[in-house]
Amino acid sequence: MSDVERIVIELCRKARQAGRQLALASTATKDDALRRAAQGLRRATDAIVAANQSDLEAGRAAGLSDALIDRLTLTPERIDGVAEGLEQIAALADPVGETIERWRRPNGIEISQVRIPLGVIGMIYESRPNVTADAAGLCLKSGNAVVLKGGKEAIHTNTAIAEIIADAVVEAGLPAAAVQLIPTTDRAAVKVLLAQSEYIDVIVPRGGPSLIEAITKDSSIPVIQHYAGICHVYVDADADLDMARRIAVNAKVQRPGVCNAMETLLVHADVADQFLPAVAAELEAAGVELRGDAKTQALVPSASPATEEDWATEYLDLILSIRVVGGLEEAVDHIARYGTGHSDAIVTDSYSTAQRFVAAVDSAAVYVNASTRFTDGYVFGFGAEVGISTNKLHARGPMGLRNLTTYKYVIEGSGQIRE
Amino acid sequence: MSDVERIVIELCRKARQAGRQLALASTATKDDALRRAAQGLRRATDAIVAANQSDLEAGRAAGLSDALIDRLTLTPERIDGVAEGLEQIAALADPVGETIERWRRPNGIEISQVRIPLGVIGMIYESRPNVTADAAGLCLKSGNAVVLKGGKEAIHTNTAIAEIIADAVVEAGLPAAAVQLIPTTDRAAVKVLLAQSEYIDVIVPRGGPSLIEAITKDSSIPVIQHYAGICHVYVDADADLDMARRIAVNAKVQRPGVCNAMETLLVHADVADQFLPAVAAELEAAGVELRGDAKTQALVPSASPATEEDWATEYLDLILSIRVVGGLEEAVDHIARYGTGHSDAIVTDSYSTAQRFVAAVDSAAVYVNASTRFTDGYVFGFGAEVGISTNKLHARGPMGLRNLTTYKYVIEGSGQIRE
Repeated sequence: MSDVERIVIELCRKARQAGRQLALASTATKDDALRRAAQGLRRATDAIVAANQSDLEAGRAAGLSDALIDRLTLTPERIDGVAEGLEQIAALADPVGETIERWRRPNGIEISQVRIPLGVIGMIYESRPNVTADAAGLCLKSGNAVVLKGGKEAIHTNTAIAEIIADAVVEAGLPAAAVQLIPTTDRAAVKVLLAQSEYIDVIVPRGGPSLIEAITKDSSIPVIQHYAGICHVYVDADADLDMARRIAVNAKVQRPGVCNAMETLLVHADVADQFLPAVAAELEAAGVELRGDAKTQALVPSASPATEEDWATEYLDLILSIRVVGGLEEAVDHIARYGTGHSDAIVTDSYSTAQRFVAAVDSAAVYVNASTRFTDGYVFGFGAEVGISTNKLHARGPMGLRNLTTYKYVIEGSGQIRE
Repeated sequence: MSDVERIVIELCRKARQAGRQLALASTATKDDALRRAAQGLRRATDAIVAANQSDLEAGRAAGLSDALIDRLTLTPERIDGVAEGLEQIAALADPVGETIERWRRPNGIEISQVRIPLGVIGMIYESRPNVTADAAGLCLKSGNAVVLKGGKEAIHTNTAIAEIIADAVVEAGLPAAAVQLIPTTDRAAVKVLLAQSEYIDVIVPRGGPSLIEAITKDSSIPVIQHYAGICHVYVDADADLDMARRIAVNAKVQRPGVCNAMETLLVHADVADQFLPAVAAELEAAGVELRGDAKTQALVPSASPATEEDWATEYLDLILSIRVVGGLEEAVDHIARYGTGHSDAIVTDSYSTAQRFVAAVDSAAVYVNASTRFTDGYVFGFGAEVGISTNKLHARGPMGLRNLTTYKYVIEGSGQIRE
């Protein structure tokens, strides 16, 4: 067994033990740990900034892009924001212990379905060091031990943050192994982690599609995926075209780099000539590059031709593909074929068309007359967000604390036996 | 591409299309299909029995055991039972379309979490041909298309049943591809099926641990596992010993071959001398072979020594391992180490001990003063059972129709955009 294997397996084994203790911890104890961790981060601002400097120097030496360097950078203000995030998690309701349903059977046994932690969560993420604290906080609050594997560019910063949180956890009377960071940048560690199905209950990767695909392929543990969002807005013949324009512009330009931004606009042929020139002008004024099918190009000469690849691309940028469709069925088929089951919207004032769109589009979030940009754990009111799941099993759409739990059935009897 | 690949992939592709239609089907239409299928099976009794004869002859020629031949056999009475099962599924509430939660956000958008089908379910099972109808019925009712892969011993019977159900589905106005059986006994078909993550949303294997392990290893699609049940009954110092005896005997002997039967009895040292000789005599009178630790053997001389392997074995037979423990913590530790997270019980009249056991034992079903034999979808009141999941994600414990669904968020607005 290699050193990496030994280290990772031992760490996962300890996480399992810690998870068993954490599952029994009271909300007050967990919140105490979270608040102590926030205080600890603020107190250790200088040390964290110093650790971050080491990562930034190494990153610059390795030629990281400015965007990556920015994501990696922690300032005192950002550290305060991370601490505040932990305090916000402490203020949320604890999902653990909730009785989801309770009923009595004819023989007198009482069955309760009770929410409990999953156990141990493996978080694998890329460069942003704030994820170390966010993930630790979300897992701690939901009663789960966490094994963190951050990006190699952030190893010093992540180590500093994880140590401070683990100290706070111990001060609150909980096991240190509740929050552990894999202390190596050796890529072999990920493969070892993904094989520990005895100790880890679920893997939550946060990062680009290639990271998520590689993890899903290698993992013997269930993975909750946060894949791409190729989100659509369909402007129906019965749409309020002013509303449609506001929604389309918002869905594309308000924050183009996120997964719930629109990538493709579908427009009913009956309103294309009325709708497209005006919305195209507004989008172009906001700096959006337009790519359209032939019908779109006829109405918007500045649009370049959209290829098959465009329909299947998550731009995450100020680029939009546009297609004129014959009606609802064609729009729904387009979404089924090219969408990623993330967030899709219809703008219409027809009640029956809205009903049909909502029923036929199989996405985590289906919108009527609102921007796709609302798919977000905070906006939905979950208070904190693990991410946006594109899985269909267990967690779909914005993941709150509740999605880090499972349940058990508790059966209370008075001596019942099966006849 | 091989013939098997071509056949299986095309079948899965059709299942995806059928699933999209089925998701929109009304409860009345689905129930009509189920009742027609039941009638069809009854009408075709002679043809099914004839197909079954072919399988039985081949099975006898291949030297199948009497037990396997019995599992494979369909008589007119058993066919009537299978048809009745479909009618019972038709009578159940439809989980699809249920609004799980609905709330309004400050900006006026209304968010509904709505239950929808998973899409396409792959069912892989061993010899019992009744599973063909059961699985088809459960998937149909929950609005899912199903791809069935039965055991090679039952290929003629399964084909006959699947064709009758597909005919009924078409008569009811639903797509034939809603229920499809993979029409080959080539083992390569399973590997091809397990790679169709584009078309199949979840794999539900039903069979022995080796089947389930192999499928989990090969599958790129999430698998809902139904693993072994190493179930424990812990008799506490504060137990009503008469009740404890009745529960222990029931949990072991009422039906020893099922996953919710007890495999290990844990007894508090303070009551071992009072409890063990009497319960051992009753168990032995019922034909149970006892294996115990040294303390048990001292009290029950007829017990043979239990080895480390015994604690980790699901006997599914009239064999029981017995261990005397120092108290609750030791019992909980034993269950955590050797249990499979299925069903575990405590017998005690101490309120606080019961609370601690319920909190600390991480199993799908945790019992206080009742037999572990109640872990069952019918007994729990779910009306039908897909199986008993030992997964922690998505479905845990007895799986009813609801566990074959997922959800979407439907967001209704009046033009809201994100600021």
